[in-house]
Amino acid sequence: MPEFDLIKQYFASATALDDSVLLGIGDDAAVLQVPENKQLVVAADSLVAGIHFPHNTSGYDIGHKALAVNLSDLAAMGAQPKWFTLAISAPPLPPSWWQEFTCAISNLAKQHQIMLIGGDTTASPVLTISIQILGLVAKNQFMRRDLAKIGDIICVSANLGDAGLGLAVVQKLVQLSNQHEKLVIQKLNTPIARVELGQKLVKLGVKCAIDISDGLAADLGHILDSSGVGASVFLAQLPLSASLRTQPIESAWQFAVASGDDYELCFTVAADKLKLFQANLIDYYPIGRIESQLGLRFFNENNELWTCSRMGYEHFT
Amino acid sequence: MPEFDLIKQYFASATALDDSVLLGIGDDAAVLQVPENKQLVVAADSLVAGIHFPHNTSGYDIGHKALAVNLSDLAAMGAQPKWFTLAISAPPLPPSWWQEFTCAISNLAKQHQIMLIGGDTTASPVLTISIQILGLVAKNQFMRRDLAKIGDIICVSANLGDAGLGLAVVQKLVQLSNQHEKLVIQKLNTPIARVELGQKLVKLGVKCAIDISDGLAADLGHILDSSGVGASVFLAQLPLSASLRTQPIESAWQFAVASGDDYELCFTVAADKLKLFQANLIDYYPIGRIESQLGLRFFNENNELWTCSRMGYEHFT
Repeated sequence: MPEFDLIKQYFASATALDDSVLLGIGDDAAVLQVPENKQLVVAADSLVAGIHFPHNTSGYDIGHKALAVNLSDLAAMGAQPKWFTLAISAPPLPPSWWQEFTCAISNLAKQHQIMLIGGDTTASPVLTISIQILGLVAKNQFMRRDLAKIGDIICVSANLGDAGLGLAVVQKLVQLSNQHEKLVIQKLNTPIARVELGQKLVKLGVKCAIDISDGLAADLGHILDSSGVGASVFLAQLPLSASLRTQPIESAWQFAVASGDDYELCFTVAADKLKLFQANLIDYYPIGRIESQLGLRFFNENNELWTCSRMGYEHFT
Repeated sequence: MPEFDLIKQYFASATALDDSVLLGIGDDAAVLQVPENKQLVVAADSLVAGIHFPHNTSGYDIGHKALAVNLSDLAAMGAQPKWFTLAISAPPLPPSWWQEFTCAISNLAKQHQIMLIGGDTTASPVLTISIQILGLVAKNQFMRRDLAKIGDIICVSANLGDAGLGLAVVQKLVQLSNQHEKLVIQKLNTPIARVELGQKLVKLGVKCAIDISDGLAADLGHILDSSGVGASVFLAQLPLSASLRTQPIESAWQFAVASGDDYELCFTVAADKLKLFQANLIDYYPIGRIESQLGLRFFNENNELWTCSRMGYEHFT
């Protein structure tokens, strides 16, 4: 298909990044050399038009997000991304769409020095992008969901809720100033995976992390379920952007707690490690603590139990 | 989603197959130990309802084929399959469908001793299954498309064209006896990937292979293009099943040459290696030879140049 030729063309230069790819795009499979002192980390995430993004989203934004959500999975492990495959099922689309799409993926791939090693382009009535990403960690040096310990401080890497606010703007449920609208839509469409941060956290001894794709409540919920613990989160400590602070505070908390697509990291760490973060210039926002009492509790600024009316506390991986 | 719970449940036992999986389904990514003396082989293939299989195909057949086509990619490399991820985008389907689907994948995974290590289930109006498979080869011991040498004998692993005939039966373009119909539809819906054969061929020194997914003409064409050579194929030497031989010979050749979904291997090998195949009890069917003159030529039983009227000589990977 001419589309895959276009993609190959864009990535032709990228295949020379290093000598780990013994056989790249164009055969039945790719052949890779995994360094002897490393372990392989593998994640796969799909985006479907009309489900994960509105049908009128640009090719650039779709391409960026498809790769970014996979990078974010590796960030949550503390892995270094290395290679990816790209399966696209698509209806007929104009060449300009394919150019935008491949440009976005190519830009992000270059930025993270990762290589496209294979893929598949097929016809479909519904645009579906399925990426599988492969990365590396030093032996047994990775973060996981099931290692939160009672007493750990729960931290997030940056502002929450902006992408959810962006979606509300796109859906015309909320109106903001032009500048704020631009910022939050950018957060929604071109999220930044915290790849470097993830690797730094592992080096500093952080054992437990997840990326926030389905909202803090749902994703912190995964950590709690997997670790067999509970948590209290203090809403006044949630980092909120100036854009989100334009909203009534209850509404801002709802966006921060229950809306997805932030792709920040949520991690738990023993309190005595926090000074290491400061020494290593790592931005972190402590928002709560891990407790023995099961369940996830939110407290408002008066220390009253708070219930999120929009909370979509889902349990799937 | 409850569907992925079902899939996890089916595969829960499979995760204990060996200790290569340090972290399996249920985290942001899987973590794998690749043996130090091996290289990693990666392929990805998607199936879309209405494109790769008729909408009324059973869950069992879809599950089987989705994994089999990926196994076939590794077979063509001579790799040992080890792990796979499964991304499903699906409309609402009854529990019985999911049971059949997971049963087929689980059966095939057990048969090849491969492990599901992650995945993603999302809603979509169109059923799309995207699998990425990971396997192993000994260092630099794999087959590729671009190493066909002038003088090599072109071989295929078994009968060609049955799956194409099966599709013609499903589409009611051809009618056969019940027994033949059953056989060729089985070939279409539950193909067998030549995984063991691929590994044996590598051990015997075969350097150049492809799996026949788009038809002999298209896939041998990929070998020729990649290797910068041409070929002559002698139609009288094509292995044809009794089912296909029920058709007029011209039509049988067309099925064997131009229809896809056979998932047999096509490989090229120096003539003096063929005696090794016999000694190692490998079934092979020599069908032609690699030549310096570019292009792919077919000759009928009278050694006359033959053109396939249905030939869809495609050039994509």
